[in-house]
Amino acid sequence: MAARPLLPEPPWHYSGEMLTVEYRTDPERVSELLPEGAALMEDDPGAVALIWADWQSAGDDLSEVLDPVRSQYKECFAVIRCRWEGETWSRCPFIWVDKDFAMVRGYHQGYPKKLGEIWMTRPITVGKAGPRLEPGGRFGATVSAAGRLVARATWTLDAPADSPGFVNAHPMLHNRYWPAIESDGSASMDELVTMRGYDGEVADVWSAEAEIEIRETPSEELYVLEPLEVIGGYYHRVAASWKEGTTLRNEGD
Amino acid sequence: MAARPLLPEPPWHYSGEMLTVEYRTDPERVSELLPEGAALMEDDPGAVALIWADWQSAGDDLSEVLDPVRSQYKECFAVIRCRWEGETWSRCPFIWVDKDFAMVRGYHQGYPKKLGEIWMTRPITVGKAGPRLEPGGRFGATVSAAGRLVARATWTLDAPADSPGFVNAHPMLHNRYWPAIESDGSASMDELVTMRGYDGEVADVWSAEAEIEIRETPSEELYVLEPLEVIGGYYHRVAASWKEGTTLRNEGD
Amino acid sequence: MAARPLLPEPPWHYSGEMLTVEYRTDPERVSELLPEGAALMEDDPGAVALIWADWQSAGDDLSEVLDPVRSQYKECFAVIRCRWEGETWSRCPFIWVDKDFAMVRGYHQGYPKKLGEIWMTRPITVGKAGPRLEPGGRFGATVSAAGRLVARATWTLDAPADSPGFVNAHPMLHNRYWPAIESDGSASMDELVTMRGYDGEVADVWSAEAEIEIRETPSEELYVLEPLEVIGGYYHRVAASWKEGTTLRNEGD
Amino acid sequence: MAARPLLPEPPWHYSGEMLTVEYRTDPERVSELLPEGAALMEDDPGAVALIWADWQSAGDDLSEVLDPVRSQYKECFAVIRCRWEGETWSRCPFIWVDKDFAMVRGYHQGYPKKLGEIWMTRPITVGKAGPRLEPGGRFGATVSAAGRLVARATWTLDAPADSPGFVNAHPMLHNRYWPAIESDGSASMDELVTMRGYDGEVADVWSAEAEIEIRETPSEELYVLEPLEVIGGYYHRVAASWKEGTTLRNEGD
Repeated sequence: MAARPLLPEPPWHYSGEMLTVEYRTDPERVSELLPEGAALMEDDPGAVALIWADWQSAGDDLSEVLDPVRSQYKECFAVIRCRWEGETWSRCPFIWVDKDFAMVRGYHQGYPKKLGEIWMTRPITVGKAGPRLEPGGRFGATVSAAGRLVARATWTLDAPADSPGFVNAHPMLHNRYWPAIESDGSASMDELVTMRGYDGEVADVWSAEAEIEIRETPSEELYVLEPLEVIGGYYHRVAASWKEGTTLRNEGD
Repeated sequence: MAARPLLPEPPWHYSGEMLTVEYRTDPERVSELLPEGAALMEDDPGAVALIWADWQSAGDDLSEVLDPVRSQYKECFAVIRCRWEGETWSRCPFIWVDKDFAMVRGYHQGYPKKLGEIWMTRPITVGKAGPRLEPGGRFGATVSAAGRLVARATWTLDAPADSPGFVNAHPMLHNRYWPAIESDGSASMDELVTMRGYDGEVADVWSAEAEIEIRETPSEELYVLEPLEVIGGYYHRVAASWKEGTTLRNEGD
Repeated sequence: MAARPLLPEPPWHYSGEMLTVEYRTDPERVSELLPEGAALMEDDPGAVALIWADWQSAGDDLSEVLDPVRSQYKECFAVIRCRWEGETWSRCPFIWVDKDFAMVRGYHQGYPKKLGEIWMTRPITVGKAGPRLEPGGRFGATVSAAGRLVARATWTLDAPADSPGFVNAHPMLHNRYWPAIESDGSASMDELVTMRGYDGEVADVWSAEAEIEIRETPSEELYVLEPLEVIGGYYHRVAASWKEGTTLRNEGD
Repeated sequence: MAARPLLPEPPWHYSGEMLTVEYRTDPERVSELLPEGAALMEDDPGAVALIWADWQSAGDDLSEVLDPVRSQYKECFAVIRCRWEGETWSRCPFIWVDKDFAMVRGYHQGYPKKLGEIWMTRPITVGKAGPRLEPGGRFGATVSAAGRLVARATWTLDAPADSPGFVNAHPMLHNRYWPAIESDGSASMDELVTMRGYDGEVADVWSAEAEIEIRETPSEELYVLEPLEVIGGYYHRVAASWKEGTTLRNEGD
């Protein structure tokens, strides 16, 4: 019964746009957020992507599209990379969304979602109140939680690009964890899982100059991934579908 | 001092998209919402447009664009037409927005704005979770206030069109009114004004089959403009700038 | 990692006030919401409590009390009763809250929480803008989700009472369920659990005449528990602490 | 027509509770926020009150009390004092509320209201998740706007007190101002008004040790009233009714 009424059965389809900043933090901070057995990357071990996304999503009958309060949501999430079992993985240690269905979907997939207030500039094709997808186009984004600013970034488009970064490009390596209701330190569910979408589509990829600021707040820990140096920024449109993942190991075994 | 810090000085620039349903109501209901001296149109006197809009707006330095929490807002508004002084005018008797700066800007311009929760489907260019701007593309929109649904509509795109309707195409005829603080029935401001944007741009206009439902709620009166027959529906992108209006008459004189 | 940063470790402490309507629905509707093996009550099998609550909650160091955005939340939830293993249980099939930490705490405890917009009148001791805790004091409450009204109720206080109803008075019988990420119909967690608070305190209990209205909406199912007859209404203040529950059976075994 | 449907005709009745911090800022900053012709107080010219309030309000038939989404709101506002025409006045230069009807009521009364996210601890009488109205009871409050923290404060109750401070105790001296729609620098309404409630009631007044922090944000100017020294803090319950004010001078004359 739990959270199922909030979501139809998978597959779920997503169409949206993303603003990404990739930057370097102290690799030690990345290391502390990896699952047991995973290791830092050899190349650029402190690379982080902070990504804002504005989505429409729907179940397989696409009915939510016609009731957009149940389809649209925005999110901001951090992605780090690691090596595990000879492969390269992406991992999301921090994420905020602004709808309940997205929050529950995150728990299903291993994203540690919280609610936040997320805003991101949209490109325009008429008038002046926004950027065009052209060199010099300027975007901004913020994420707040519990009434405090957690992060903000700005982008100035540079040129069309081949890909929107290298950090969020791998299968996700996530934990799914719920403690036992006995509050005795044991877990009712403690899994290392991976998941990846299908039918991915990417369009209108642009590289950008980017600036980023992250703040410590009483409730949010994103600041542990302090930006030391910006690698680059990106705008792109993106779509994917998601049906299933794979349990890599059951931590309780 | 009043509400000025919420907004920079005009001009204000707007870029956005609109979903419109035009329908017929009882002309008597339109008549009751007209300013003194104005008359019903001879052609289609009961025509109403209910319009959902998703905007970015900014002052002349465009700084809000980079802090989208202060630039983006959504609104839903009804438009009726009338004849006054030999001219045809549009008039907005009901409107909901989801940001304070838009609410105050409305009071400045004579829009009787309230806060609401507004959602509208966005067209996509990648993936499945939304409609394309092509025949058969389906959109939905809702507006709620005080936790109740006020109106919802759906659109199925038909074909590119020349214009997005005929009801919201005229200079606005609005009242600006604040009672005196003495609560003695007198007014401190009681004006009939008109305003119109400049540098208007319209793109991607599509006609659509549309359905609409309006509900009575304890706080909202949109139901007085009950839909009796749908005229048509539209999607379009739109931009405009706004600097000033004209006081047509001072009602207190 | 999942949702833990949203909440400190138990115990959690709660202080708040409740407005309750108890009513009868078709017992068949109650039956359909019971876990396997549970049976309807013999006395008043269709009894339902719909409860609005306004809480402050905190972890054991009570630090959230000083940052009330992380302590205060409102909720509305339905409670039904059943017999299982020779005992009487309460069970919550539908619940809405307005904060993320409350939502996640619900998943931990087996409450199928969604986000909603919840409002309830508060008693006052000065002035006119509210009811006193005295005969004739009138209260109202609403719960909305996805921009639609789900339920509303009103109460007129009658007299001090011994207890705030009989439906929500038993240990909770809840399911905790998450499907496997493989989307193959299997579950990663599928438990029947029970939980109960400690250090409970009740004060200012009043009985009331009550009215209730429940609506069907595209996303909410509370209407399946259609009110056929009101049993009674209550106002009371309540506090409790919660540390742990008990797994009654692992459904996967 | 303007904003009237959001509010019934006065009188309006209010019942609520307040948390107040009184502190000293640079008197020059107070001076810059006074209307023309007004002067700083001779005693304690830099005194400021920052007040959080949690209200129920209603029109004369009290109908909103039963639909609390239209009755309840929270606000945070700054109050300064001045001398004008031989009298002492209070004046509110900055204020945030969380409902549209409160925002419009503010424009009517001369309060320069914006929307904000406001939270304040409530006293409890059962359990642990909050303070009692007793020595040592601890409260917190925050106000945020545009996703940024604007101010936060904490209070530790000391002892029952005779009055909740001296800054917000005088008739209000407010400007009501709307520029002409011509955007030519002229005003359509430019009044200096005063207003005061009636049937005021105060209860449960406590003095407190208080701490306060104010931040600069891109959209909010409260920081100009920088706290240099805390004078004191207060909790109290308060009620009042409001029907009318008086126009002191018409600035356009």
